[in-house]
Amino acid sequence: MQTHEFRASLLDAGLLVNSGGDGIFQRSFTFESIVRGVESYASNAGDAPANQRFFFAPVMPLATLVSSGYAHSFPNLMGVVSSFAGSDRELPAFLGKLDTDDHWMSELTASDVALSSAACHPLFSNFSHQSIPEEGLLYEIQGVCFRHEPSIDPARMQSFRQHEFVYLGTSDGALAHRDKWIELGSDLLRELGLDVQVVVANDPFFGRAGRILANGQIEKELKFELTAPISSDAPGAIASGNYHEDHMGRVFDITILAGGPMHSACFGLGLDRITLALIYAHGTDVSQWPRDVRALLSISNSTTGPS
Amino acid sequence: MQTHEFRASLLDAGLLVNSGGDGIFQRSFTFESIVRGVESYASNAGDAPANQRFFFAPVMPLATLVSSGYAHSFPNLMGVVSSFAGSDRELPAFLGKLDTDDHWMSELTASDVALSSAACHPLFSNFSHQSIPEEGLLYEIQGVCFRHEPSIDPARMQSFRQHEFVYLGTSDGALAHRDKWIELGSDLLRELGLDVQVVVANDPFFGRAGRILANGQIEKELKFELTAPISSDAPGAIASGNYHEDHMGRVFDITILAGGPMHSACFGLGLDRITLALIYAHGTDVSQWPRDVRALLSISNSTTGPS
Repeated sequence: MQTHEFRASLLDAGLLVNSGGDGIFQRSFTFESIVRGVESYASNAGDAPANQRFFFAPVMPLATLVSSGYAHSFPNLMGVVSSFAGSDRELPAFLGKLDTDDHWMSELTASDVALSSAACHPLFSNFSHQSIPEEGLLYEIQGVCFRHEPSIDPARMQSFRQHEFVYLGTSDGALAHRDKWIELGSDLLRELGLDVQVVVANDPFFGRAGRILANGQIEKELKFELTAPISSDAPGAIASGNYHEDHMGRVFDITILAGGPMHSACFGLGLDRITLALIYAHGTDVSQWPRDVRALLSISNSTTGPS
Repeated sequence: MQTHEFRASLLDAGLLVNSGGDGIFQRSFTFESIVRGVESYASNAGDAPANQRFFFAPVMPLATLVSSGYAHSFPNLMGVVSSFAGSDRELPAFLGKLDTDDHWMSELTASDVALSSAACHPLFSNFSHQSIPEEGLLYEIQGVCFRHEPSIDPARMQSFRQHEFVYLGTSDGALAHRDKWIELGSDLLRELGLDVQVVVANDPFFGRAGRILANGQIEKELKFELTAPISSDAPGAIASGNYHEDHMGRVFDITILAGGPMHSACFGLGLDRITLALIYAHGTDVSQWPRDVRALLSISNSTTGPS
């Protein structure tokens, strides 16, 4: 089943509804019950302390987007939020432009808010100008991320959930965290009946300088993706393990108490893509999924809502 | 406890973490488990068919924001999303501006995406230029909404969840739906130990013309808010019942098969504000909440995650 056929089957089954814009979907309660099943299943395998588990908002301070380096490396994918910041007196002119479609958006003012780029960026911002213990910190974070890349591929939503296990600490600790989770994550996803492959990968850095960064990422084997079929086209990335070296430590000025910049790593599960891969593997009728997969995801027989 | 004291107690207890921007919070798994408890509790009281229950993304087509009238009435609160749309060749100039902070945001291009204004707006857009049956349609929708109004009041988050029960159909049906839900919703929230008052209200329309709209809304009693204490300051709106008359029918060109424009109504629960009101009423230690409230919200004894 090719991408466009899989998309059609999702829409026909009512699991997703197209909202009128490419890559923007309304998700049925059934789709969401799978997402939540994957979330709990992954969360149970995590070992972050209870008070270091967070859900992040879909928006974050614009300053965090810039500090993280995201605005430099992925300016085409980012989302900066603008509003009308004029007075009562300026409103009629604004409304006149809005009604005649005359470049009305040039009347808007950028706010200090951006759409979240990756689940872990706001976390690093929390530790800005701080030192953390050498033994490291573990966090579990779910974020709603945005990428401006309109596409009809259901696996390329503009707004999607990342569920991440993040380590902040030493270089050795970061590499160990990433490698442990690549193995654990692969096992967890294979248990769900997915055909998971682990491949060296790179982020989609923009521009010529970006291609150099991407090559370096591959040479140094910083990023691994876990892929699975989401159509008969090339397999899609459903999770990734990333070693950031000391990038986040440097840009957010985070050190370890023993001295030197913080190193970090994260393992991120793409909840929406895993859900799509599960539907592709097991069919659009969730009641007919293998019994063991349903049990692992705590999907009841009457899946009408995310309970 | 005043607003700033309640905010401090939430941050001290680790239920919320300030992300660095006013009105942007990172929510603990414990906070989220309450949100999900309220969601299930309300959802169980709903009667929308299983295939008419949806979760909407935090973003929606910009066209929907404009068609709904939101950009006209609340231009100060809306969020339009911009990205860098330049080429490889234009990137160095952009990065130069970004690094020197020289009005770099003027280099961005508005996308065709906006932050979601209200949970039900994308729903109406789905029915654009269509006729619906006279007996009406019921939907249950959860949306992540955005309002650009930075504030230190935790009840005024820039990004928050609305859980709505929406009716599309006739004028009589819409009024009956709203009034039924104002009563049912008040009962449900009072059962949770909240001191709920029902008051006639208006939306925060912008500008001089907006004040006329707001007055009309109050005169015609189109909007009722359910309020509860979220601090010792004035009670906050935690839910609302809204009769849209034929506004959505007209702007999205939706008719009923028997003839005439569609009328609509919604009852929306502010999941984050209800959670805050519950914490204000019962304390920051969820394990000490009244047993019956915990039971109604399916909060287990070991609340470490949203399971």
